[in-house]
Amino acid sequence: MSTVQYSPVTSYLHHILDEVRADTSGAVADYIAELAQADPNPLGLALTTVSGHTYTAGDCDIEFSIQSISKPFVYALALRERGVDKVHETVGIEPSGDRFNSLSLDSNNRPMNPMINAGAIAVNQLINGDDSSVADRVESIRTILSELAGRELTLNEELAYSELDSADRNLALAYMMRARGLLNDEARAAVLAYVLQCSIMVNTRDLAVMAATLANGGVQPETGKRILSPEQCRLTMAVMSSCGMYDGAGKWMANVGIPAKSGVAGGLIGTLPGQLGIATFSPRLDESGNSVRGLKAFQAMSSQMGLHLMAPHRIGANAVRSIDTYADTTVLNLQDHINFSAAEQILYEIRQHDFGSSRLALDVTQVMSIDTISRRLLERTLDTMQSAGFAIFLYDPEGRLPNLRIGDKPARFLDADERHGLMG
Amino acid sequence: MSTVQYSPVTSYLHHILDEVRADTSGAVADYIAELAQADPNPLGLALTTVSGHTYTAGDCDIEFSIQSISKPFVYALALRERGVDKVHETVGIEPSGDRFNSLSLDSNNRPMNPMINAGAIAVNQLINGDDSSVADRVESIRTILSELAGRELTLNEELAYSELDSADRNLALAYMMRARGLLNDEARAAVLAYVLQCSIMVNTRDLAVMAATLANGGVQPETGKRILSPEQCRLTMAVMSSCGMYDGAGKWMANVGIPAKSGVAGGLIGTLPGQLGIATFSPRLDESGNSVRGLKAFQAMSSQMGLHLMAPHRIGANAVRSIDTYADTTVLNLQDHINFSAAEQILYEIRQHDFGSSRLALDVTQVMSIDTISRRLLERTLDTMQSAGFAIFLYDPEGRLPNLRIGDKPARFLDADERHGLMG
Amino acid sequence: MSTVQYSPVTSYLHHILDEVRADTSGAVADYIAELAQADPNPLGLALTTVSGHTYTAGDCDIEFSIQSISKPFVYALALRERGVDKVHETVGIEPSGDRFNSLSLDSNNRPMNPMINAGAIAVNQLINGDDSSVADRVESIRTILSELAGRELTLNEELAYSELDSADRNLALAYMMRARGLLNDEARAAVLAYVLQCSIMVNTRDLAVMAATLANGGVQPETGKRILSPEQCRLTMAVMSSCGMYDGAGKWMANVGIPAKSGVAGGLIGTLPGQLGIATFSPRLDESGNSVRGLKAFQAMSSQMGLHLMAPHRIGANAVRSIDTYADTTVLNLQDHINFSAAEQILYEIRQHDFGSSRLALDVTQVMSIDTISRRLLERTLDTMQSAGFAIFLYDPEGRLPNLRIGDKPARFLDADERHGLMG
Amino acid sequence: MSTVQYSPVTSYLHHILDEVRADTSGAVADYIAELAQADPNPLGLALTTVSGHTYTAGDCDIEFSIQSISKPFVYALALRERGVDKVHETVGIEPSGDRFNSLSLDSNNRPMNPMINAGAIAVNQLINGDDSSVADRVESIRTILSELAGRELTLNEELAYSELDSADRNLALAYMMRARGLLNDEARAAVLAYVLQCSIMVNTRDLAVMAATLANGGVQPETGKRILSPEQCRLTMAVMSSCGMYDGAGKWMANVGIPAKSGVAGGLIGTLPGQLGIATFSPRLDESGNSVRGLKAFQAMSSQMGLHLMAPHRIGANAVRSIDTYADTTVLNLQDHINFSAAEQILYEIRQHDFGSSRLALDVTQVMSIDTISRRLLERTLDTMQSAGFAIFLYDPEGRLPNLRIGDKPARFLDADERHGLMG
Repeated sequence: MSTVQYSPVTSYLHHILDEVRADTSGAVADYIAELAQADPNPLGLALTTVSGHTYTAGDCDIEFSIQSISKPFVYALALRERGVDKVHETVGIEPSGDRFNSLSLDSNNRPMNPMINAGAIAVNQLINGDDSSVADRVESIRTILSELAGRELTLNEELAYSELDSADRNLALAYMMRARGLLNDEARAAVLAYVLQCSIMVNTRDLAVMAATLANGGVQPETGKRILSPEQCRLTMAVMSSCGMYDGAGKWMANVGIPAKSGVAGGLIGTLPGQLGIATFSPRLDESGNSVRGLKAFQAMSSQMGLHLMAPHRIGANAVRSIDTYADTTVLNLQDHINFSAAEQILYEIRQHDFGSSRLALDVTQVMSIDTISRRLLERTLDTMQSAGFAIFLYDPEGRLPNLRIGDKPARFLDADERHGLMG
Repeated sequence: MSTVQYSPVTSYLHHILDEVRADTSGAVADYIAELAQADPNPLGLALTTVSGHTYTAGDCDIEFSIQSISKPFVYALALRERGVDKVHETVGIEPSGDRFNSLSLDSNNRPMNPMINAGAIAVNQLINGDDSSVADRVESIRTILSELAGRELTLNEELAYSELDSADRNLALAYMMRARGLLNDEARAAVLAYVLQCSIMVNTRDLAVMAATLANGGVQPETGKRILSPEQCRLTMAVMSSCGMYDGAGKWMANVGIPAKSGVAGGLIGTLPGQLGIATFSPRLDESGNSVRGLKAFQAMSSQMGLHLMAPHRIGANAVRSIDTYADTTVLNLQDHINFSAAEQILYEIRQHDFGSSRLALDVTQVMSIDTISRRLLERTLDTMQSAGFAIFLYDPEGRLPNLRIGDKPARFLDADERHGLMG
Repeated sequence: MSTVQYSPVTSYLHHILDEVRADTSGAVADYIAELAQADPNPLGLALTTVSGHTYTAGDCDIEFSIQSISKPFVYALALRERGVDKVHETVGIEPSGDRFNSLSLDSNNRPMNPMINAGAIAVNQLINGDDSSVADRVESIRTILSELAGRELTLNEELAYSELDSADRNLALAYMMRARGLLNDEARAAVLAYVLQCSIMVNTRDLAVMAATLANGGVQPETGKRILSPEQCRLTMAVMSSCGMYDGAGKWMANVGIPAKSGVAGGLIGTLPGQLGIATFSPRLDESGNSVRGLKAFQAMSSQMGLHLMAPHRIGANAVRSIDTYADTTVLNLQDHINFSAAEQILYEIRQHDFGSSRLALDVTQVMSIDTISRRLLERTLDTMQSAGFAIFLYDPEGRLPNLRIGDKPARFLDADERHGLMG
Repeated sequence: MSTVQYSPVTSYLHHILDEVRADTSGAVADYIAELAQADPNPLGLALTTVSGHTYTAGDCDIEFSIQSISKPFVYALALRERGVDKVHETVGIEPSGDRFNSLSLDSNNRPMNPMINAGAIAVNQLINGDDSSVADRVESIRTILSELAGRELTLNEELAYSELDSADRNLALAYMMRARGLLNDEARAAVLAYVLQCSIMVNTRDLAVMAATLANGGVQPETGKRILSPEQCRLTMAVMSSCGMYDGAGKWMANVGIPAKSGVAGGLIGTLPGQLGIATFSPRLDESGNSVRGLKAFQAMSSQMGLHLMAPHRIGANAVRSIDTYADTTVLNLQDHINFSAAEQILYEIRQHDFGSSRLALDVTQVMSIDTISRRLLERTLDTMQSAGFAIFLYDPEGRLPNLRIGDKPARFLDADERHGLMG
């Protein structure tokens, strides 16, 4: 576990908290006795990079119940246990336009998405097999949430039972779904399992790490353990982006532009795919049930830090580090993760280059990764060059491009001496 | 204008077309006489990078009417002419869940979003001032679309008037909005202006360049001309992502995951912020009114090319190219665009490094850009180092970090000789 | 034409007007220029019995446009011209729960009922054949409304064209219906025909007579001319009762309990089947578009006059006027209209009677009418009596029960002398 | 208790049953185990007049659970216990357009009407005071239903608990209402009270008598006991007429035209205000949940027996039995119940009559009743006549018009001898 103790990043997070701290509007959720008694004042902000660095500011160690923030993770767990097809027989993935506690069934008799309560109750039913007891099912959920957080999380059963007492609306949804054959469990048991899932205790730091695991394609960035597949993460973040924030997916996507999910105890998470997980904690909620200061912090970070998914960062636009021309050899020094856009740039540079030599060498020492389509595009370009009479060499001391083939033959790889010799 | 004539990218686009070519399901739109007579067979695919490279495959020169693909661009134009606040008094940005031709007014009496017809008619009204004639308003739209495409586009007025004849539904929407005071123009004039906007003739190549302009933050990547602001592009792509595809924003975001918009004449565009604009053309539509083969091509490209917004690419994860230690100086060689994630990595590396020297030099020759927050984080870190006794130097021959300040004083910049001297 | 000039009924109507006169709340319809300029003060109340007596109080001679009160009559005309099946392919008969100017299509793609504007526009299309010109169709409607009123009514074309100018909402409905294939005419022509229908000028007296024609089963009570069939009237009044009053069929049925229809120019009609037609005129409208003082007058009359359909009047409970026993003959003197309830009473009396004689005579001189089922019940009872040994006779000088059969033989009818002889 | 053992009415009811007996379409309700096992074949029809005569045909003694037919009676009981205002704070009276088991709350957060399950559960809560136990509340309901039926009815508790087991939908409604603060009881207790209410066992004869009590203005026609007020009956029948039949108030009002309510065990009741209560029993249901043969029987009776509320019977059109002119006295013999229409006729006759005498006598021996407004109209007419010089006399041996005043003085009443003397 690596929390960075002091850093300008930490300072920046404190700065964000200072920007939003004064806003004491909103109120703690009052429909559950235990939540109503919560201290409204704590304020925390944590950020975890996909490299596994976590930064915290404010009250990041205070535990609170995860509530609806469990929804995306349990959805991801359901995808892992049951597969996409089975899960999407049970629940849709469209925004409902209705309140989180509406039934919102679609034309296929499924709850509209897993982020509304009806959908979350239905998805909870999928965990641990059709015959699972409530206790075993909740334990499965507690286990994966613990793995995602990187520490053992606990249930607050007292809270859960208190919540069950005022869960008229959720019981209504469960009975409604049962009346339509959408639940296996008796309605009360289904809601119990769901409120137990919601009662898992987390702190702001936990949530940042959990969110970062989604952003990192399913590998917990601190432990390095793969918990979910990239596709499961992709689907989960897609559903968060279109259905995660109550009342206004479009507005959220326009103004903040990152997949997010809030919980009624005051938590809020966001993910920036390939980059970050972020979490805030501030229990005062606005009328839609979102944390007031949490929302403000996200808006500030989105605009100041350029986190918006639609913000036009140039990604991999610098794939060709340099082109060096020696006596009879042209050396392309490549770098970075090579995705399609990067590959396009490399190919374009090669094609544009006025080769004064008949030998082309690619130095891929600085390349971090290359995806399938880019590798194929590169192979084809090199094949074309070779057919045109060029001799092609690769220098790949880190093994980034193993088994590269040009035409129907393996590429010729240089060793360090040969590489060095080119420069001479 | 730079269309790359031959390239593995081109080959790859042909390969995508080959994958989808055989699917002749669907039918051309039949509610307008002129569209009903369209040749259903053409198939085109074009891709433009933010660097301004365009690749085409198939029938990319055939002209067809832009139809609904005009909607995001006219929305962006309205944002430019009227500002965000005025535009969002007129139209919302939430997905409607209804068909594109429903009225779908929200609780503020606005059409739900600018991608449904009612919203597009309302947004069209905003162009060229409240007192604009239909002709002048349409000319303003034609002008900006031409700038976006990089060539003079023309209207197909015959088509527009043919469309007006079967525009009962749109006339109904316009009369309904007029009844609610949402239109200035007489209803028929409003619909005429809208169908004229829809009748602007484009080819697949045009659409790819136009989409790439959005992806590029508003600078047309071939002409280099700024047409829209980054914020206008961000909002436009956000609305495309949540409301752009008929019947199923959530499914589209899950499966394809890029902002997109389709037109009833068979066009389809997508944008990948910071990277690409893509366009396809194939007139046969599915029941939702989307191009059958266009959808398939987008799905194939999204998964094969890793274009999904939620796909966890590591962005800027390689910001520190190397750390070189000389006699009494540690040199950090930085590279790439420095966004928040990259800055975090740099700071982390600096803090982790066990400096054997008391002099720290940053070589930012290879840095392409740095955003505000990252620059500030860097300044603060260097300030801390300096306070701790380090002497800090920058080598910035390309002027990437002008006026950098450390503490309250300008940073000390090295010249080339000095930089070279460090190595000695 | 028989307007009763002076009567306590007239006084009573004046009394009702005095009760409501002071209420000057509400406002004249302002969406049409011509209506907005109307004098808000007139107040009229007229009542026509099915016997053809008309009583008026207040401003019953002022002409105003019939507006929506035309809807039930044009619906009845459509039933007459096209038959029930064809009409109900075009329009439903269920209350919509929506505003009068909503589209409200049902699952069969029909407007919900003929009392909302969409339904009225669709029903108007049915008049005078599919190929009718607007002028001919409107003339057909003017003609039947004139027959119903018993005088030549005129169109206010100027008003109609003024209304067309602000008919955005109705034009929207018409275009919407046309888009769904529910209209033959071009949308503007359809709305023109409808607003012309609405512009027919009537006074309060006219409306009372027209309403009384419905109450009288289709025979105009002053002229004696049959204009509609009883079934057409029954359906029309049924639709008025469930869909006639905007916003609240249930409340109207609970509080007033008579089929009714209001118009935006201030008219309001009600029918009490078999008894009365009532009309009021007062142009100030409440927020639902109903005449404020008209509603109050109806409520007062309903409760004071016992007009509520659900008020438990005993109908025909006095069918047996007397039973006279003479030497060897029992004479039943029957009276009134014999419906099922009355017949049941007659039969019950016969069965209860302790006949001291073996001869039974029925004197039906005072019977006004007998319906089919009652006649059949009477025949069977007499047959049973005859089989039990009674001799049965009828005295029917007015021919109320022609061709009555007892068992398989014609009944034996007495002449006046024989009847008189019984008493001796 | 007076069931008429043999009568042509009975024969007629058998005839109706014969018409519908062959239709074995539909199926018994299968969602409750006990109902699913019911014999589908029984067929019964009973009719009770407001005079207290009951006629039965078929299986009228078989007991079945009252189910939803309890709704109008418990609504009437709530009106009696709590008054109109309190009841209508709890439940609306508008048709919902939705299925009987939808929540259908109106804009005032009330269930739309007492005939849908949500409304019936809410109304049940009103019975026997806010603090009533479930058992006491149900006993109150059982007691009034027994009084209405004229015999002690029993609960089928086993059925109720079986129904509770499959009451997911009703539990959902109850939890939903509880979540909105619309229920006092815990949701499960509320549903238990409702299903117990539904489990009261009745036979077809009972239902006819109960319906006739509504038709009779609240006086049980066999026992003569007043159970409800006329206003409570009027409201109950109004709600039955607009909301009683699932899926299609408008169609029912058009085709059958009498207030009605069906139950899922196969019962169906209808009322004809002032005349009849009717009940049928046949357990096979159509898709809307109405008894197939029950509906057919009602349709047949409505058209054959002229029971439709909108059917134009002439009511009281014969109020003047005769006008006899003697030497110096004109005698008007009046008869029947004098409502407004009848009074109008009397006044009209008086005014039309060419009096050859200066003395006017009214013989009201045959008058059954006179309502307030009619009495007032009569008084005023007689006053006018008296002022014009007529001497006015009344003959009222039955005391139908006690304390009648003409002008400011009591009317002059004749004794029998004086009456007889007139004829001489």
